[in-house]
Amino acid sequence: MSGAKLDVVGARELLRRTFPQVDPAFSIVEVGEGTAAITLQPDERHLRPGGTVSGPTLFALVDLAYYVATMSLIGPEPLTVTTNVSINFMRKPSLALLRADARVLKLGRTLSVGDVTLTSEGVDGPVVHAAVTYAVPPSR
Amino acid sequence: MSGAKLDVVGARELLRRTFPQVDPAFSIVEVGEGTAAITLQPDERHLRPGGTVSGPTLFALVDLAYYVATMSLIGPEPLTVTTNVSINFMRKPSLALLRADARVLKLGRTLSVGDVTLTSEGVDGPVVHAAVTYAVPPSR
Amino acid sequence: MSGAKLDVVGARELLRRTFPQVDPAFSIVEVGEGTAAITLQPDERHLRPGGTVSGPTLFALVDLAYYVATMSLIGPEPLTVTTNVSINFMRKPSLALLRADARVLKLGRTLSVGDVTLTSEGVDGPVVHAAVTYAVPPSR
Amino acid sequence: MSGAKLDVVGARELLRRTFPQVDPAFSIVEVGEGTAAITLQPDERHLRPGGTVSGPTLFALVDLAYYVATMSLIGPEPLTVTTNVSINFMRKPSLALLRADARVLKLGRTLSVGDVTLTSEGVDGPVVHAAVTYAVPPSR
Repeated sequence: MSGAKLDVVGARELLRRTFPQVDPAFSIVEVGEGTAAITLQPDERHLRPGGTVSGPTLFALVDLAYYVATMSLIGPEPLTVTTNVSINFMRKPSLALLRADARVLKLGRTLSVGDVTLTSEGVDGPVVHAAVTYAVPPSR
Repeated sequence: MSGAKLDVVGARELLRRTFPQVDPAFSIVEVGEGTAAITLQPDERHLRPGGTVSGPTLFALVDLAYYVATMSLIGPEPLTVTTNVSINFMRKPSLALLRADARVLKLGRTLSVGDVTLTSEGVDGPVVHAAVTYAVPPSR
Repeated sequence: MSGAKLDVVGARELLRRTFPQVDPAFSIVEVGEGTAAITLQPDERHLRPGGTVSGPTLFALVDLAYYVATMSLIGPEPLTVTTNVSINFMRKPSLALLRADARVLKLGRTLSVGDVTLTSEGVDGPVVHAAVTYAVPPSR
Repeated sequence: MSGAKLDVVGARELLRRTFPQVDPAFSIVEVGEGTAAITLQPDERHLRPGGTVSGPTLFALVDLAYYVATMSLIGPEPLTVTTNVSINFMRKPSLALLRADARVLKLGRTLSVGDVTLTSEGVDGPVVHAAVTYAVPPSR
């Protein structure tokens, strides 16, 4: 691969255009060739009782990070959709900054397969690890 | 098992108490011994562009349905947490009523393992299937 | 669907031809439209210490049952390959007859998605549950 | 953690004692604190038609590597059992040396959660990636 098809600025623009309803607290901070990092500063809306970040919020972060990592390889492709996520919840995140690091392990003709690791400031070790598969348009 | 430890009314009350922030559009419609059904009438807040229900919304429905199915066997246990969800997105849901049917396949000393199937009115075949594991408190 | 593209006899023949090395103790006992059942009478070769059936043996049974269930819909397609298996080990199987029941939940253009449940004679409740995805040739 | 509870020699001995039937072609080559590497030189017994390594063989390699990685943290614990494996098959391995690298991401009171990456000599990029969960004895 000779270079990523998206940079941070391009990825933010793509996101604003294709997912206008994405929580503006989600911030794309890095985009490489088949990698992406997204952060979230959780607030009240992302919590469940006990003051921990909700499962759907963590899922959304995983899903979005992997979407951007895939886009970095194939460019903007609106027909790209999640087919499988196997997500392990390992530690309770704190209320501090969350960061999702996604990497594509295999970009095939119709599937993008990889994983995402979530870390939480002040928590030792990853809080979430997920294996992710997206279907990508074959004729690209 | 001689009977469910929760009925629909008890489950709704438990949910209101333990997850006050759960979307009120989510409705518990059935609770059995190790089974539960939840419905959602999706509206604008649940959609992503292209007019389909968002992944995090579908995940939330899966997670909640399995939580209630587990509670039906062990009663209200605030320390019950999701450890793994392997979710397959199979068909695009319509904007009509979504229904999640959860069943516990194994309630062990520390884990509850089962699956959830999501159907969407007017769509032929399930839209989502997920294998789910929750950690349950051992001393119950 | 107007009918399965394979019956039990056809499936056994296909298996003998395409997987001559499959353990002859594996027996195809039912084939429907998108469903299949395989049994295994475990012997010494399938056990690990403690006298329980080994994980790879249970995996092989899941994989084969889902392969046959998919073939029942698309006919013999040598290029069909497993892409994801999320397998939950729930109960210790006995040394009696094991049975795998596979069902296709969605046959798409390039993916077959479904699940497999394993039961063991004399054991109450399923011993294994797996969500399975196969890649199928698009031009069929 | 002040050090691994097993080294390569100890791990090989443990394996010979607890899993005497493990394929002698599987070789433990590295053991760290929460990490392990296993290699396999595939031969005829590990292949399926088309000359590729069979799914159950790849599963066995994943499972064993993760078992050793967990043992490196808790020492020999015969009651440790696989509860979930979500395995993605990404590339066709060659017939050359296979290597499984396992790492524990979280060792909790009752669960060990991590992942395993398989590489194949001469193949660019991982051939298999799996998220793995083992149940470990709580009273250790």
